[in-house]
Amino acid sequence: MSQTTSSSMTCPTPTINSGEISLSHGEGGRVMRQLIRDRIAAKLSDVQSSSDAASLGTLTGEIAITTDSFVVSPLFFPGGDIGSLAVHGTVNDLAMAGAKPLFLTLSLILEEGLPLGMLDRIIDSIANAAANCDVKIVAGDTKVVPKGAADGIFINTTGVGIHETPHRMSGTSIRSGDVLIVSGPVAQHGLAVLAARESIAFDPPPVSDSAPLQRVASELAHCLGPDLRTMRDATRGGVAAVLHEWAEETGLAMRIEQSRVPMTAESEGVCELLGLDPLMVANEGTFVACVATDRAAEAMEILAAHSLRGAPSVIGEVVQRQMSPVLISRGLGGDQPLDEPIHAMLPRIC
Amino acid sequence: MSQTTSSSMTCPTPTINSGEISLSHGEGGRVMRQLIRDRIAAKLSDVQSSSDAASLGTLTGEIAITTDSFVVSPLFFPGGDIGSLAVHGTVNDLAMAGAKPLFLTLSLILEEGLPLGMLDRIIDSIANAAANCDVKIVAGDTKVVPKGAADGIFINTTGVGIHETPHRMSGTSIRSGDVLIVSGPVAQHGLAVLAARESIAFDPPPVSDSAPLQRVASELAHCLGPDLRTMRDATRGGVAAVLHEWAEETGLAMRIEQSRVPMTAESEGVCELLGLDPLMVANEGTFVACVATDRAAEAMEILAAHSLRGAPSVIGEVVQRQMSPVLISRGLGGDQPLDEPIHAMLPRIC
Repeated sequence: MSQTTSSSMTCPTPTINSGEISLSHGEGGRVMRQLIRDRIAAKLSDVQSSSDAASLGTLTGEIAITTDSFVVSPLFFPGGDIGSLAVHGTVNDLAMAGAKPLFLTLSLILEEGLPLGMLDRIIDSIANAAANCDVKIVAGDTKVVPKGAADGIFINTTGVGIHETPHRMSGTSIRSGDVLIVSGPVAQHGLAVLAARESIAFDPPPVSDSAPLQRVASELAHCLGPDLRTMRDATRGGVAAVLHEWAEETGLAMRIEQSRVPMTAESEGVCELLGLDPLMVANEGTFVACVATDRAAEAMEILAAHSLRGAPSVIGEVVQRQMSPVLISRGLGGDQPLDEPIHAMLPRIC
Repeated sequence: MSQTTSSSMTCPTPTINSGEISLSHGEGGRVMRQLIRDRIAAKLSDVQSSSDAASLGTLTGEIAITTDSFVVSPLFFPGGDIGSLAVHGTVNDLAMAGAKPLFLTLSLILEEGLPLGMLDRIIDSIANAAANCDVKIVAGDTKVVPKGAADGIFINTTGVGIHETPHRMSGTSIRSGDVLIVSGPVAQHGLAVLAARESIAFDPPPVSDSAPLQRVASELAHCLGPDLRTMRDATRGGVAAVLHEWAEETGLAMRIEQSRVPMTAESEGVCELLGLDPLMVANEGTFVACVATDRAAEAMEILAAHSLRGAPSVIGEVVQRQMSPVLISRGLGGDQPLDEPIHAMLPRIC
C-alpha cells in the first residue's frame, strides 16, 4: 500500500484484494500507476512509464512495422505462454519481412480477477523473451475490464525494425522452379495448445515450437540476397495457408510431397488420432522459405545450423498453374489438390 | 461466398451466418482473408493486407511511438465511438509528446457474434478519423474469440510520429511560477460514455469531447518552444490525475481554482447529480498545458483559435510544495488538498 498522504484523510485508499486485478488497476489513478510502475515497468527497463509516447531516437534505414494481438487459451502451455508468444510472434513477423526487430510496444487488456501472480509470470516471460530477442519494450498501456468481459489477459505487441538488406521479400518475387523449404517439424504449436486446452494427456505431450526467428532469417537474407524470394512463418492456417497465399499472389502453383514434410512421430500420431491435417495446424517458430533452386543447398545448410528442434526439409517446388493452386503428392501416385484452410479448426491458438 | 474451386469437393465452404463474426473469421484461412480484404483493408487503403510487416520507408528526425488499447463500453456514444476514439487517443498521445502523428497500426479482437454491420460502422469511423488526422493505417491484425471471451470488439492502435521541434516536453521542465491551462470544458467524455452505458436520459445528453489535438499541439510547440513546458491529455483520471503526475515528477505543488475550471452548465449539473468530481472524469480531446507565465496569453490565444467547444482557461499555477501535491481553492477561503483519483469510478471509459 502507498504511504499515507494528507489527502488520504478525506479519501482513504480502498482495500483492494492484493492478490487479484481489480477495476481500480485500470482507472488512471494511483492504483494503476503503482501496478504499472512496480509490476510491469520495473521488469521492462526501457518503458518510460509516465510519458504519453516514447522516443526511439533517429533510425537509419527503411523502417518496418507490424502489429499482433494475442488471445491464446490457455495462457500457459508446454513450450511457452501468452507472454513469450506475444514477443516471438511480432519479432518473427518483422524477421520474415527481412527486418531486424528493434522495439516493441506492449498493451495489456486484463480481466478483473486475474491473479497478480499469473500477471507476474507473464510479465517475466515477456521480459525474458524480449531480452533473448534483443528487442526493447519502449511503451505500454494497461486496461482492465470487468470479470466476464475478457478472458484473463489479451496482449498486443507492435514491433518496429529496420530492413537490413536492399532486397524486399515478397510473394511476387516467386518464380516457377523455385523450391519450397520448411524450417523444421510442423504442427507443434497448435497441438501443444490444443492438448493443454482440452486436457488431453499425450505422453510425451506436444511442445510448442514458439521461438524467435530473427537470427536465422537475417543470415538467410544476407547470404542469399534476392535468391531468397520470400519467407513466411506458418502461424494460423499452418503451412497450407502460406502456400495458398503465395499461389494467389503469383498465379503459380505450389507443389509439395507429403513424405517430405518434417514432423515428429508424436505430432503425426496426435494428428491422426484427432483427424487434423498437420499442414493446417499453426506453428510459431517454423517457417516456409521460397528459394531459387540453385541456392537451396545453401539455404538448407543455414537452416540446419540454426535448427534447435529438427531438420529442415525441401518439401516441394513452384510450378506453372494447371488447375489447383496447391498440389500435394501423398505417395499414392499423382497429385491431389491441397485445400485452403477455411473454417475454425483451432480457435485462439495465438 | 468465394468461387468454387476443385478442392471444394473434398472440403465444402461452410455456411457462415453472413451477418455476424464467426470463429472462422479468425482462423488464418480463406474466410479470414476475405474479411480483412473486403471489409477492413478495402476501407483503409494503406494497409498492406498480405504482408507480415509494413514498410514505413525512411523517416528523418527523432521517432516517437505510443500504444493504446480501447475497451470502451458502449461501443457507440454521443460524440464518437470506439473507432474514432482509437484513432484520436493514439494521435493525441503523440501530439502531447510534441510529435507529428504519421502512421497507425490497427489490431482488432472481435467477439464471435459481433454483427458485421457494427464492424462496418466502426471501420468506417476509423477510416474517417484517420483521414481527418492525416495519419495512414499501415498494418493490422484480426483475432476472433468465442462468444463470452470478449465484449464485442477491443481495438489496439499503435502510433508512430516524428518530433517536430528540438525541445522535448517533460514534467521535469516544469518550474515554480508556471501557469496551468486547460484547453476547454472538462468531463464531457466520461459523462457521455456513462450516460450512454447506463441509459441515463439527460436533456441535452452529454457529448464526448473526443477530437484530434495534433494541430493545436503543433502550433503551441512551434510558437512557445521550451516555454511550453509540457502537455498532457486528461484521459483516465481526468485533470486531477495529470496534476498529480506532474506534482510527483517535479516535487512542486499544482494549485488551481475551482471557479476557473471550464465546464458546461450541463456537465456541472450531471456531476452534481451523480456525485462525481469533474476534475476526475475522463476527457478525450481536452488537455492540460503547463506554460511559462509570460507566455500564457500567447498560449491562450492559440488555444482559443483552435477551440471548437468552448474557451480555454488558466486554472492555476505551479507553486513550491508545502504539504499537499495538488491544491484547490473552492472559493471557501484557503486551499484544500485535491485528492489523487485512486479507485474505480468509471471503468471502460476508453
